[in-house]
Amino acid sequence: MSSIKVVKIGGNVVDNPEALDRFLDDFVKLPGKKILVHGGGKEATRLSTRLDIPTTMIEGKRVTDAATLEVVAMVYAGLVNKRIVSKLQARGCNAIGLTGADADVIEAVRRPAAPIDYGYVGDVDAAGVNSTFISGLLDECMVPVFCAIMHNGEGTLLNCNADSVARAVATGMAMVEGTALIYCFEKEGVLRNVDDPSSLIYEMDRDYYRELRDEGIINKGMIPKLDNAFSAIDKGVDSVTICHSDNLLTCHGTTLR
Amino acid sequence: MSSIKVVKIGGNVVDNPEALDRFLDDFVKLPGKKILVHGGGKEATRLSTRLDIPTTMIEGKRVTDAATLEVVAMVYAGLVNKRIVSKLQARGCNAIGLTGADADVIEAVRRPAAPIDYGYVGDVDAAGVNSTFISGLLDECMVPVFCAIMHNGEGTLLNCNADSVARAVATGMAMVEGTALIYCFEKEGVLRNVDDPSSLIYEMDRDYYRELRDEGIINKGMIPKLDNAFSAIDKGVDSVTICHSDNLLTCHGTTLR
Repeated sequence: MSSIKVVKIGGNVVDNPEALDRFLDDFVKLPGKKILVHGGGKEATRLSTRLDIPTTMIEGKRVTDAATLEVVAMVYAGLVNKRIVSKLQARGCNAIGLTGADADVIEAVRRPAAPIDYGYVGDVDAAGVNSTFISGLLDECMVPVFCAIMHNGEGTLLNCNADSVARAVATGMAMVEGTALIYCFEKEGVLRNVDDPSSLIYEMDRDYYRELRDEGIINKGMIPKLDNAFSAIDKGVDSVTICHSDNLLTCHGTTLR
Repeated sequence: MSSIKVVKIGGNVVDNPEALDRFLDDFVKLPGKKILVHGGGKEATRLSTRLDIPTTMIEGKRVTDAATLEVVAMVYAGLVNKRIVSKLQARGCNAIGLTGADADVIEAVRRPAAPIDYGYVGDVDAAGVNSTFISGLLDECMVPVFCAIMHNGEGTLLNCNADSVARAVATGMAMVEGTALIYCFEKEGVLRNVDDPSSLIYEMDRDYYRELRDEGIINKGMIPKLDNAFSAIDKGVDSVTICHSDNLLTCHGTTLR
């Protein structure tokens, strides 16, 4: 049994107050050391629209100019992060909200401007994670809650991908203790037939993944997610589970080892 | 010599990038354990205006409805706090940005709706400050950076006055170690003649304060600030200094004991 669980939630939870409350009710019951990583959902896009700041997405990633960086810092680090932290505190869970800049806990590297200039966007890996500081919080029974706003150590905030932040944190902590990574999303897990929840694949190793991919059963959108997940396993994470956010406690989902 | 310094900055620093950089250059040179508390300046009002959310101030305090609470959480906890933290990290200062909800470090009490209903506004005092957690950070050479967004422990964020947060933190820490409180603002300190910086009063005790107030030399706006400052001294803070944000290191200002 892994001693640290890193749980990532995205838009289907963050954008829906009832789903968020349901998820947090479960999250506080999850035993042992745990870390939450959250995306920002659609609130950043909504705020950009209200402020007449154009939103540009390339291959699903937000191009982050200076004005957009302010928006995502406000929404992810201010609104969403503090909403989650205060809700966890109300449930008796001693959460502490963090960006990468706080306590220099995660340094990111700004993505090169070529081939695509994403602006203030960064990439993270385990090397940038201050596992000693995170371990200290976990040992004090605190629950770190990360948004995906990181910094470069030189005074610049960087907008990162929350899935990648979760993977970086999990692989960083895996150097210290056994770590499981759990991606919560809007489906039951990896499905043989995307429209049929009963076609859930419960367990998957690399060979089986390759087979399903070669057969075309795993669809295009899942491939980067699964490549990302297997790379966490390659870097020492014990298991990666992909499940619906309502199924955190039952572990009903797809587990990769 | 007090071992902990609690420094508060407001709009004249936060709203001005050059003044902020100058201040942070000095702040990192301040020796010993230190804590920064910041206000939000005019950015919250600017964002409210851009979002067509009316700003209502009563006696200099922001009435905080649900929409305004989102604005101040975004601006204070997201934009301003993370900007300051990343700039301190770039200067080699291991800052950690905190609202009251993070690690349950400061609990506030929602202000009663009568006589004036300020909405989601809270009051803080030393009893709500988790000095053990703050001491732990200081012992690890970290620098806590507080914005004035607190929580009530029941899942609700509360907008508080940054001067009061600084006083609560200082009086809370004064129970543990000798603590000095430094309010940085746009004037040299308390002036006999508000238009003449050379009329600075360097030191003031309660008797002298009463005398100056009775003579009408201390003007209306300074009275709540000084009452607030003397109440910190009554509660165990060693000294309160009121100075210009450019004079942090020289201590050129008015010191109350």
